[in-house]
This record gives sequence, structure tokens and C-alpha cells, in this order.
Amino acid sequence: MSELRKDPLLGRWVIIASERAARPVDFQPPAVSGTAPVKSTASCPFCEGNEATTPPEIYALRKPFSNANGRDWLVRVVPNKFPVLAIEGKIDKRGKGIYDQMRGIGAHEVIIETPQHMTSFTSLPEEHIQHIFNTYQTRLLDLKKDTRFAFGLIFKNVGDRAGASLEHTHSQLVVTPIVPIRILQEIEGAKNFHNYRGRCIFCDIIHQEIEDDERIIINDEHFVAICPFPSRFPFETVILPKQHFTHFEMIPAHLIPALVHIVKQVFQKLEKALSNPAYNMLIHTTPFTMEETEYYHWHIEIIPRITRVAGFEWGTGFYINPVPPENAAKYLKEIIV
Amino acid sequence: MSELRKDPLLGRWVIIASERAARPVDFQPPAVSGTAPVKSTASCPFCEGNEATTPPEIYALRKPFSNANGRDWLVRVVPNKFPVLAIEGKIDKRGKGIYDQMRGIGAHEVIIETPQHMTSFTSLPEEHIQHIFNTYQTRLLDLKKDTRFAFGLIFKNVGDRAGASLEHTHSQLVVTPIVPIRILQEIEGAKNFHNYRGRCIFCDIIHQEIEDDERIIINDEHFVAICPFPSRFPFETVILPKQHFTHFEMIPAHLIPALVHIVKQVFQKLEKALSNPAYNMLIHTTPFTMEETEYYHWHIEIIPRITRVAGFEWGTGFYINPVPPENAAKYLKEIIV
Repeated sequence: MSELRKDPLLGRWVIIASERAARPVDFQPPAVSGTAPVKSTASCPFCEGNEATTPPEIYALRKPFSNANGRDWLVRVVPNKFPVLAIEGKIDKRGKGIYDQMRGIGAHEVIIETPQHMTSFTSLPEEHIQHIFNTYQTRLLDLKKDTRFAFGLIFKNVGDRAGASLEHTHSQLVVTPIVPIRILQEIEGAKNFHNYRGRCIFCDIIHQEIEDDERIIINDEHFVAICPFPSRFPFETVILPKQHFTHFEMIPAHLIPALVHIVKQVFQKLEKALSNPAYNMLIHTTPFTMEETEYYHWHIEIIPRITRVAGFEWGTGFYINPVPPENAAKYLKEIIV
Repeated sequence: MSELRKDPLLGRWVIIASERAARPVDFQPPAVSGTAPVKSTASCPFCEGNEATTPPEIYALRKPFSNANGRDWLVRVVPNKFPVLAIEGKIDKRGKGIYDQMRGIGAHEVIIETPQHMTSFTSLPEEHIQHIFNTYQTRLLDLKKDTRFAFGLIFKNVGDRAGASLEHTHSQLVVTPIVPIRILQEIEGAKNFHNYRGRCIFCDIIHQEIEDDERIIINDEHFVAICPFPSRFPFETVILPKQHFTHFEMIPAHLIPALVHIVKQVFQKLEKALSNPAYNMLIHTTPFTMEETEYYHWHIEIIPRITRVAGFEWGTGFYINPVPPENAAKYLKEIIV
């Protein structure tokens, strides 16, 4: 079992896979998406017909009269074969001198987005992508019932540079027993802004971005897609709901088609602009342990992985972005999909 | 000129290179170390004889009777040809709605570590590496006189995966007009610990690590090299002075030989263990704007770049490390160099 360790200086947690190898030749890259790269349908564990090669499914959207772990599904959720956190066991928090640690308890699931061997979910019709987003909500709602868990991150790694190891389009869900520092920092920042101005900072950002109209990619009835003012990476994109919602998993069913519509368009634009870049997509939502608030607002972050992070960024947390978000947004806005 | 922009939520700053290209085909990766990869001596701008191909030198350790920007130097400091921050101009802080920005003022220098075309500074004798560390101190002491500047980061990017674009061994210095968030967070964490326990957290870590003796690579009279308890990356290494020093640039000359001795050994071990890995090295020191404190303690961080950072890490600030630091330290400790 892995171990969670806290940095006593920064409060940041690290997952240490403590049963892994000792010698450099033995160690493996973090198995956040399965096994070695697989290109063909025959050997792809995510393709229809190969269901027996994954751990048994946790959840699936299936055609009528089909059997669990058989064919005839639309979206399938399985445990990650190499989970970074294990679902069974007690958390067992403990200290050792100035250090804090706990057992690596949590959940690590793979959402297989389609039975067909596709490398991008933009090849799917919007109705099918709605099933994927419904599945995200279903899994989050299920896991948040477990009182050991504090937070769930839905994310996608696409392409080698973004850390993907299987090309068949899929997402992942990692649920952690503590709220990750990045989320704590966002909540803290949003709370401070709210204390000071009495408004949600995300709502203010949406308002100012629409008014400035310099970094907007898409602005429709329910959602807005922007390249953020302080973008760390070229073509970094954020999708925000215009209505103030704290928890992604609580958004009403009637908004899912609109969400899928903007998400698909944004990814089609990015794929066209950057020739199918490697990317990470993340859904930032409120921790399981928090109620609705007036200050936090869920959103989707998309990071195309086209530049490298070097010593200056690691050493300072300062990022260097060679493409102004105004230029990126203008370019993406004009692409017709 | 580039622009500094503040993330209103997280307080993090980003450098936007605002004169760069608009179209994806035009944009370049961040030029933190010069131009395209250069392998040969003839065309390497850092090699002796090619001095005219760099901007004029800011500082150099030279042999007697040699001329600036000519041959016969030991260590040479030049402005980065593609600086992320410009040395001339006023900072000009301003706001726009909820956003804060300022002009990209600062310094960006390259420390060319040797006139010979070597790819690692471990090929140099310790006496020569002392010149490099003396140069780091000299440049920091000079730039901290400029009241526009708040912080200086000395760092090395080695190898393509670590963001290097020239292989001739070199370091960089970036000086920023504000204290970077990562440094602020370290100082804040150290201050909180000091308020609570009345001691320096780094001194406590050294003490506990020596006592535990599980993550020590080298422990000598003046310095200690460890794989930190909450290592984010395999074979991550930190070198700390045993004596409490706040500012790297203030350590006395008689400690430089001991520092160089441990630094060279650590890199020789890492190069042997991981077959010359790409890595980032950073010196974390106290901001120019701060006096000596009882709570902050300068140190060197070394991050071998052998795993990829994926969506989970970007989304949460939680890192997954497949190699326990105890195993990494044991392995590095036993390597004979």
C-alpha cells in the first residue's frame, strides 16, 4: 500500500508508492493510466471484447440485457489496475517527529469513454459525451458517501507528454482522504476575495472577461470558455458555468448538453489549432466535506502540454508563457469547427 | 517587453512574453537558456573563441591580462540572449478591474561555467567549481543593490527534459521584482513553525534526518544531503548547510570548498545512478528585501526529471512518487564516486 506524506514546510502532500522498487533500473513511471502504450484494438484493454483484461467494472452504462463485464456498453468504469490509492482500509494518521503521514487510502478509477478504439472523445457525438459527463457525476456522488474521503478529481491525460499510457480515450477519477493543497489554496483565495468584496471571484472574472472581450473563446447562454489573464501555459483554457455552482456533481441534468456542447467545441478548436496536442484536463470542484458556498465556483481547466517546465518554474512557482492569452483566445475563437 | 500578471485567485505571478507570436506555428518555447540545441564546439556560443556570439559579458573571472569578451576566462556571465525579464525600465505596477500587472523588469543572466565544451560540471576540478559558486554569490550581491529587485534564483537546467536548450554546462540567474509565491510559501511555513516551536524547521529537519538515518546520502562536517521525507520526484535531493544561514550569498568564503565538495559528490552519484539524467538544480535563499531571520535557511534542491507530471499533479498539487526516498537515499549513499 502507498503512503501519504505531508511536507512540514509547505503543507503539500505526496503519495509515496512504498512497495515499489529500490534500484533505478526497476522503478516505473507513475501508473496513473494503466500499462504500457497500446496502439492496436486487439491488445487494447479498453476496447469492446477485451473486458476481461481490466479489473471488474464498478459501474457501466450498458445496452439493455447486456451483462456486467461483457460487451454492449457505452461508458465503463473500472478500478485503475495500478491504483495510486487503495479503496480498502483505515486511514491511520500518524506522526514521526516533525513528519505526518497516513496510509494511501482513496479511490482510483478509469472511465472508459467508448467501446470503440478512438484517441479523442471529440470523435464521439455530443449525446455520447453527455453519458461520459453523467458518469463523472454518478461516480462522484457515489464516492462522496464514503466518509473517509474528502475530495475527488476528474481528469484526462491525453498524449505521451501529458502522462498518458493508453491512447484509447478515457478519463480518471482519483479520490483523496484529504483536500489537496491546490484546492485549499483556491478556496482560501476565493474566501479572501469574498470577505473583502462580498462577491464570488469566479463570477467577477466571468463578468470582466465578457466586458473586456479580449480572452473569450466561446461565450454562450450557460458557459464561457476563456484563456485566463494569468495563463501559465500557451493556449491554457478555462470553462466556467455562468450560473454560480459550487459542486460539479450537483449541476442539474438540463445543463449537461450545454456543457458538453462547449467542451467539445473547445477541444475541436485546440486539436485543430495545435495539431492534436498532448493535454491535461481537470475538473476543479468543491470538496466533498464542504457545503454550498457563495465563493467557490467549479470549473474545467485545460492545459495543452506544448512547452516544458524548467528550473525557474519549479524553483519559484512563477511561470513563463510565450503566448499571450489574448493572442491564443483570438486564434481559437476564429477557428471554425 | 514582457509583462508580469498576477493570478487574482492564487496570488501566483506569470511572465507573459507579450511580444511573441500570435499563431501556434510561430510561437517558441520559453527561451530560458538560449537558442536551439547545439552539440558541437565550433557553433557553441558558450565555447572559448566564440565570445562574440553572446551579448557582452557582465562579469567574468579572467586570467591576468586578458580582455573582456575575449579568450582566457574561467567563468563568464552574460545576459540571456532571450531574457524573460528586462533589466532597463520602471516596474510600473497597475491594475485593470480585478487584475494586477506590472512590466517585466528584472534580470536574466547566464553563468557559463567553463570555456571548454563540457556537458556536466562534474568533469571540472573542485577548485574550478568553487569559482562558479563564488560567481553566484558575486552576481547576487551585485543585483541585490538594485532596489527594484526582490529575489534572485540561481538554477541549472540540464538535458532536454529539464528544459535546457544548450548542452555546454551553464547556470542561470533570474532576478524578479516581486518575491515568487513558492518562496513566500516556504517563508510563511517556516515562520509558522518558528512561531509555534521557537526553532528553525530546516535545523529540525537536519536533526531528525541525522537521527533517523534513513534518507541521508552524505553527512559531513558542514553539510548534509538527503532525499526529503515528502519527495515529490524519484531521487529528489536537498543539500542543506548544518549551520543556520539565511542568505546563500552571505555564506563565508571558507565554506565554499565544503559546499562544492558535497555538491560534486551528489551529482556524480546521481549521474552514475541514473545514467546522466536530465535535472533541475535550484538554490532557495532569502529574498533581497529580508534581513537575517531565525527561521529561514537556504538550501539547494535537485530534481532529476525522470518521471512525467500529469493531470492529477497539475490539478491538485499532490505528487505521486514511485520511488520511496529511503530507497533512493540508500542507493545513492552506496554509490562510490
